[in-house]
Amino acid sequence: MTAIGNNTLNLCKTSYLDLSAKSKCAKVVLLRFRDTELGIGSGSLRSRFPAPVKAMEGSKTTTYVSRSSTGDALTKDSGKISGNGGLQTSTAGNSLNIVWHKCSVEKKDREELLNQKGCVIWITGLSGSGKSTLACALSRALHARGKLAYILDGDNCRHGLNRDLSFKAEDRVENIRRIGEVAKLLADSGVICIASLISPFQNDRDACRALLPDGDFIEVYMDVPLELCETRDPKGLYKLARAGKIKGFTGVDDPYEPPLNSEIVLPQREGMCDSPHALAEIVLSYLERKGYLEA
Amino acid sequence: MTAIGNNTLNLCKTSYLDLSAKSKCAKVVLLRFRDTELGIGSGSLRSRFPAPVKAMEGSKTTTYVSRSSTGDALTKDSGKISGNGGLQTSTAGNSLNIVWHKCSVEKKDREELLNQKGCVIWITGLSGSGKSTLACALSRALHARGKLAYILDGDNCRHGLNRDLSFKAEDRVENIRRIGEVAKLLADSGVICIASLISPFQNDRDACRALLPDGDFIEVYMDVPLELCETRDPKGLYKLARAGKIKGFTGVDDPYEPPLNSEIVLPQREGMCDSPHALAEIVLSYLERKGYLEA
Repeated sequence: MTAIGNNTLNLCKTSYLDLSAKSKCAKVVLLRFRDTELGIGSGSLRSRFPAPVKAMEGSKTTTYVSRSSTGDALTKDSGKISGNGGLQTSTAGNSLNIVWHKCSVEKKDREELLNQKGCVIWITGLSGSGKSTLACALSRALHARGKLAYILDGDNCRHGLNRDLSFKAEDRVENIRRIGEVAKLLADSGVICIASLISPFQNDRDACRALLPDGDFIEVYMDVPLELCETRDPKGLYKLARAGKIKGFTGVDDPYEPPLNSEIVLPQREGMCDSPHALAEIVLSYLERKGYLEA
Repeated sequence: MTAIGNNTLNLCKTSYLDLSAKSKCAKVVLLRFRDTELGIGSGSLRSRFPAPVKAMEGSKTTTYVSRSSTGDALTKDSGKISGNGGLQTSTAGNSLNIVWHKCSVEKKDREELLNQKGCVIWITGLSGSGKSTLACALSRALHARGKLAYILDGDNCRHGLNRDLSFKAEDRVENIRRIGEVAKLLADSGVICIASLISPFQNDRDACRALLPDGDFIEVYMDVPLELCETRDPKGLYKLARAGKIKGFTGVDDPYEPPLNSEIVLPQREGMCDSPHALAEIVLSYLERKGYLEA
């Protein structure tokens, strides 16, 4: 532990401003540093670098910290330092200036922390086939088992990430591509990502599958006849489509390509529909058998 | 537990195909179901719905399951059912057809599971200012404390989600917007998301800040003079920019707007640079004080 005296000596060399967003006036307070204030959990961490002098909590405070005594300053870490903007090249794929930054905490480390394996459960099917309902039931079932799951809902993403996209053909492809990329990031973070979107075309689904390691893309096909989806019509969209008020509606005047290689197929027929819980249990059972519910 | 006899009786009504992707031929096997085979961890789950008859593990197997006895079939869940494609409206923001799907597992539930609060640590600064290095050190420090963190690196996203974007002005804005949206999703999943990208403009950073609840967007400004970044020049990009081989490079012939309202400012000066560990500790200390390292 660096003595307070040393910390004070170092103040002239550099400072770190810890500013909360609300207030404009900075209040500078020096406090004695104690391990308990920082609450560092790892002994190795504590020994690796001297702790900063902690500032008093307030609307706007300034924290001064001491220089590291280990000597491994930023300037010695060349090659790790990132820059992402300011390059002229047109696409990352063609650019030598965009470097992949690896970090010592890997996917497997996060999986061990969570005691699960990050993966993508991709639920595809017609509007009204029960994708979101299954996603929610599965999310509940996984949470009840202490597993971290997160739903990427096609509709919800249209409010945020994909709000710039229309429903014309190329934008639908881009909508699915982006959700596939985000699902990949979530799986890489260790989360069991449940993606729920019509994704009517085999090519688009397969492109998302190809982003992930073998086995980690688990396609769930809601095999529900159009007639049954149309009977349900929970949002009244089929009615609008039949009335010609929505053009290019999947199943009505735009095709849905049933998946050829889904890991799980969930058929539902008129009068023979299982509960969302029962459907979720089938997916859960698959994940269990394939080892995704442990690290 | 539903008796095997009941399961068998129900086979005529519906079936669920559990297909692995590799094999083309389906092998149908009926096995007696046991709790231990599904390995359901939650008693409440087990009692809520009957368990499926589990199929034999194999290259391609078919699983038949029984109907739920709870009666809450999909058809009764209207209003929850999703559809995300097939609509004609041009943007989600203007469309009444795009519904936000809520799910009973909320952010706070995931945070309790993880014993942390999902948030975004947004590291901004010039190329060569040490953003990625800090991101990695912070990721290690958080992991060492048992916290789930994930780095969204601007460069790395250029290989995936943002591979379609160029470096012209509007695409740079879009690059940042998308990373902000993904960071929001990660934070919502409960993850401590560490976003590391130059993000030179106040407007763009503030737009990302606005996506998150108050306090959950924690801006970290790498306050490093251009001269020092250029001396480091870990990827040789400043040299290329000065030689005119890269146009519009931030800090050389494109502006960087220093943040006005960063929660944390980390100044580094020539000959007075702290270790990445020490810098990470400052951010960690901030997260600790603000309660992000507990649920």
